[in-house]
Amino acid sequence: MQETKALRGTSLEADAEHILRAITPTLDLNKHKGQAGKIAVIGGCREYTGAPYFAAISALKIGADLSHVFCTKDAAPVIKSYSPELIVHPVLEESYSVRDEDKLSISGKILAEVDKWMERFDCLVVGPGLGRDPFLLDCVSKILKHARQSNVPIVIDGDGLFLVTNSLDLVSGYPLAVLTPNVNEYKRLIQKVLNCEVNEQDAHEQLLALAKGVGGVTILQKGKSDLISDGETVKSVSIYGSPRRCGGQGDILSGSVAVFLSWARQHLSAAEGDTSISKINPTILGCIAGSALMRKAASLAFQNKKRSTLTSDIIEFLGTSLEDICPAC
Amino acid sequence: MQETKALRGTSLEADAEHILRAITPTLDLNKHKGQAGKIAVIGGCREYTGAPYFAAISALKIGADLSHVFCTKDAAPVIKSYSPELIVHPVLEESYSVRDEDKLSISGKILAEVDKWMERFDCLVVGPGLGRDPFLLDCVSKILKHARQSNVPIVIDGDGLFLVTNSLDLVSGYPLAVLTPNVNEYKRLIQKVLNCEVNEQDAHEQLLALAKGVGGVTILQKGKSDLISDGETVKSVSIYGSPRRCGGQGDILSGSVAVFLSWARQHLSAAEGDTSISKINPTILGCIAGSALMRKAASLAFQNKKRSTLTSDIIEFLGTSLEDICPAC
Repeated sequence: MQETKALRGTSLEADAEHILRAITPTLDLNKHKGQAGKIAVIGGCREYTGAPYFAAISALKIGADLSHVFCTKDAAPVIKSYSPELIVHPVLEESYSVRDEDKLSISGKILAEVDKWMERFDCLVVGPGLGRDPFLLDCVSKILKHARQSNVPIVIDGDGLFLVTNSLDLVSGYPLAVLTPNVNEYKRLIQKVLNCEVNEQDAHEQLLALAKGVGGVTILQKGKSDLISDGETVKSVSIYGSPRRCGGQGDILSGSVAVFLSWARQHLSAAEGDTSISKINPTILGCIAGSALMRKAASLAFQNKKRSTLTSDIIEFLGTSLEDICPAC
Repeated sequence: MQETKALRGTSLEADAEHILRAITPTLDLNKHKGQAGKIAVIGGCREYTGAPYFAAISALKIGADLSHVFCTKDAAPVIKSYSPELIVHPVLEESYSVRDEDKLSISGKILAEVDKWMERFDCLVVGPGLGRDPFLLDCVSKILKHARQSNVPIVIDGDGLFLVTNSLDLVSGYPLAVLTPNVNEYKRLIQKVLNCEVNEQDAHEQLLALAKGVGGVTILQKGKSDLISDGETVKSVSIYGSPRRCGGQGDILSGSVAVFLSWARQHLSAAEGDTSISKINPTILGCIAGSALMRKAASLAFQNKKRSTLTSDIIEFLGTSLEDICPAC
């Protein structure tokens, strides 16, 4: 049975530091803007603005060159005001601001606006602070379809998981999709895909079955240890970590996975790639690296701030954490 | 052949630190507000707000006394929120907010609003976060014409370069214009003006021909080394620098060049000017000084923040960088 074989192999625990060092690109004076990664976050509505900011700024702090946010018109000025470093597009709309008879044309305009940029992005993060407005989610479904047609990798978190759990065909069978569920989001996915309850005794087998059930999409199940599977293999990341559970850490993780997944793909496409990892799915590598870096930053922030640690404090430690493992020069 | 003569002279590498020391004005308790420079940035629209902020705040951090931003009504509150130090004028309009029949009168009002201030400015920076809205660009074309009539120096970057590359007569033959193209913007300029492709073997000759082709406008070609030409001479700035390529660094450069260009003109108009540089075009001096300072600040920020370096981090090092080279007292 393939599941058992995957589990019986060498240690489940990934050598995350080795992977981080292997896929993080060297810096080079000959490179130009964009080559270290262009990330876009789809999220941010009238109700939520912090989550897309956390995801987008984390990508920059890890070393991406450009980080965009596509959000609603209400959310944009707020997200912009958090940081001048982000490029924030006020393009999405929620039902309350759109008349029924205008929905089709507005949805078309939104899609055209995002499409103008789509192929420039190395990875999308869909879901942080997206909300659950039906019109908005309908537009995001279309954006997901276009991203998939353009072969752009997609990390899906938060309300993006609500959307795809209810419409699995949006991601099913797309090897460049990563889902990053927390305990509740994982439970709903298991119920929907495997039609059963979460079974902690067989956690690894169940995750493997879930990832296979969604057609080889990569799933990063967040927890005390993070577990990662693409339906072929299971890896865990248990190093570092913090007991603090302030909201927003999942947003850092999604931005972090987006950057490392882009770097892993870039690394694997280069002729001189590290042979010890060259056969691993780049979405798995991205998840392992993103998880380990987030856990290290959380641990350093917790050492400094203890119970007072906020998500912004963790973000401030992303740079040092990467530098500790993989010095820039 | 003039090109060859210009290239055959002494080292192409500018003595940037000497120039920085020569043109930076001494501070003096008898001076009053405005004498160290009044800069205005034309840019900032619904989509982009970070870029004009970076350019305007950099000018202040280097030592200008006043820094204005002329942007759209949507962008103004956001740019104001980044810093209370800037004077932000919400005067520009994009097509979506203007009816066709009102365009002429609104364009007239915008121009009158900017004209009220025009002659007070020592330099304009046109383009950071300007966007490409046709009505807005049309208004900015008119602002450029008025600036030129008033002999106000203009540094053009970002979407301002998109505008002037398509309408070269806006700057052609204006000796107080500086263009600061990155690799892609440079490529479009070469295609438009010289009707050929970029040739890296003859980089200096080609830059000289380009600057001459636009009638002696100064061009600062950004890259691993920055190359500067006004069609008569070519200089390079290779000192310092950083391998980090996060978006926004070009905005610092444009604000920086604006300040040093103003200071260079002030210096050259003073009787007691430094004779070693008194024959150099002040736009060239401004580009050399602006480039060197930006590169030094980027290098110091990178030493501190490594891959995590963002544009805001570089801006924080502008002051120390200038102080290292040219102590205030």
